[in-house]
Amino acid sequence: MQINLAIDAMGGDSGPRTNVAGTLLALTQDPLLNVTLVGDKPLLESLLLQHQLSHEFASRISLLASDDVIGMDESPVSVLRSRKRSSMHLAVQLVAQRQCHACVSGGNTGALMLVGRHYLGMLPGIERPAISTAIPTQQGHSYLLDLGANVDCQAEHLLQFALMGSVMVSCVEGKAKPRVALLNVGHEAIKGNTLVKLAAHLIENHPSLNFVGYVEGDEIFRGDVDLVVCDGFVGNIALKTSEGLARFLSGKIQSLFEKSLYSRLVGLMARPLLRQLKQQMDPVRYNGGSFLGLKGCVVKSHGNADAVGFSFAIMRAAVEARQGLSARLLEQMQKLDLPQD
Amino acid sequence: MQINLAIDAMGGDSGPRTNVAGTLLALTQDPLLNVTLVGDKPLLESLLLQHQLSHEFASRISLLASDDVIGMDESPVSVLRSRKRSSMHLAVQLVAQRQCHACVSGGNTGALMLVGRHYLGMLPGIERPAISTAIPTQQGHSYLLDLGANVDCQAEHLLQFALMGSVMVSCVEGKAKPRVALLNVGHEAIKGNTLVKLAAHLIENHPSLNFVGYVEGDEIFRGDVDLVVCDGFVGNIALKTSEGLARFLSGKIQSLFEKSLYSRLVGLMARPLLRQLKQQMDPVRYNGGSFLGLKGCVVKSHGNADAVGFSFAIMRAAVEARQGLSARLLEQMQKLDLPQD
Repeated sequence: MQINLAIDAMGGDSGPRTNVAGTLLALTQDPLLNVTLVGDKPLLESLLLQHQLSHEFASRISLLASDDVIGMDESPVSVLRSRKRSSMHLAVQLVAQRQCHACVSGGNTGALMLVGRHYLGMLPGIERPAISTAIPTQQGHSYLLDLGANVDCQAEHLLQFALMGSVMVSCVEGKAKPRVALLNVGHEAIKGNTLVKLAAHLIENHPSLNFVGYVEGDEIFRGDVDLVVCDGFVGNIALKTSEGLARFLSGKIQSLFEKSLYSRLVGLMARPLLRQLKQQMDPVRYNGGSFLGLKGCVVKSHGNADAVGFSFAIMRAAVEARQGLSARLLEQMQKLDLPQD
Repeated sequence: MQINLAIDAMGGDSGPRTNVAGTLLALTQDPLLNVTLVGDKPLLESLLLQHQLSHEFASRISLLASDDVIGMDESPVSVLRSRKRSSMHLAVQLVAQRQCHACVSGGNTGALMLVGRHYLGMLPGIERPAISTAIPTQQGHSYLLDLGANVDCQAEHLLQFALMGSVMVSCVEGKAKPRVALLNVGHEAIKGNTLVKLAAHLIENHPSLNFVGYVEGDEIFRGDVDLVVCDGFVGNIALKTSEGLARFLSGKIQSLFEKSLYSRLVGLMARPLLRQLKQQMDPVRYNGGSFLGLKGCVVKSHGNADAVGFSFAIMRAAVEARQGLSARLLEQMQKLDLPQD
């Protein structure tokens, strides 16, 4: 199925050059993909020229001029109404106007959430979008949400995350009854804080969810469940702590292999193996946080993703668009008829 | 300085054999250490006999008979009053009666906390003990607390953790002004949940604390701060997620080095290097959670620690006892005159 994605070419820490390179990578990977690059048109044109694209390949890329870029540290609220000509605004609008199936941005997360909410609207019964991402496990990958969009949650929010996440996993992974777990400090019913205990009660008793109980932090990477639900504060800490530890360990391994002549030799021999490990584990493979809760598909690329990472976020958006995730979420949430706050 | 520690020889998943072996290891490492092993006396005697200790070495070990063992999954509240002849109760009592400087147990964490609180009492102004542990960083190690004792916290609790943790780091590590940070989802003042924002205000304005601001999850392992404060739910998730990821990665590395003849050869050559890495990173080195808030020193060993891990928990208790941590905490908390709930 042909897909057209809106790409915020200006967002992210490394800017248009990386975003354009990542987009071209994704276009190479997926021959049925078309994109609209939104940004500084002359700049994008000159960047594309450098890649010497064939006429056919270039025909899959449209450009849309924007006049403004939202900075990574700007206050989301202040940019929402004042910066309507930004690349982020225009990219999201392309989705709202149904000119594109989904949009991808590496820009300011909070701004992207507000802009998405403003132009696309929220699913019925959902108050705020939640961010979800795939994480590697012993058995492939699982999903974790929320990752930081909602730092003060009520139990009802965790139920909403479970419902949306479950629809997403079922839609994108083709799993009939995704196993949903709550992240907690123990397995027993008496364990946990008030929020988790209340949420467990709601999730357990919801007829459309396959709740398998609590998982502890060390079980996230086991892959025994399909979806791990937690509030955004906890999810952000869990994800970033993992990123920090992975970086710390990989630095340790690197310096170990540089210590002596012997270790350098071993390091040289081990290089292909370590490269395999890196490929399997590489966070770029899991780049792409989906905003669940919007009436439309918006994928956030990590701010400091490189071109490969950005291409993975684009491919994530392509999968969600092809599987009709937005429509499926809307349909399911309408059926559930959640109470509106 | 001669130290006498009470050891709950029956606690933990792997039981008396491991605990005795770990105790003997610690006694070998620290010639000024004496212990009282609390547990099933005939069993302990037979275990000690197997080690063929010299008379001199054996003279550093006393035995105290207990009639009961608290199971790892028993309800803490129910065992507090009904199981007064358990090894855990008697070991903690030895500290309360000042016959031992500190006690170590690998048993049921909740029970150990209640038993400790019952016999030792709480420091003035502190409601519930917090658990703190050292974690490896790029620059050595830092401390994290709370790790799960307090899953529903108010901002005042986080302030108490910061105060106790700061005294602990200053006492045990000899740092004059430990750098205290709050774990959060961002660095800016507007970031975070309500709890963290309120706590930041309290900690920042406390004259005896050196607050350096927020750290994110990925910065825990950088070591730029001495103490990372968070509520027990978040701390538990961060620590266990790290443990899970480390286990996941080490499994990946192992299977990578077993894949082919070439990788086996490289694995063989890399073995001494990987052993070094394991030694540097090994969680057993960081085994030993200190209960801060009790009027007395109680160290919790990880339930599934092996003998080496258990010996590290004992050495942790020995350091805290030698540095007079309990007295220092009492003195500082009295000075601060925190409001009693």
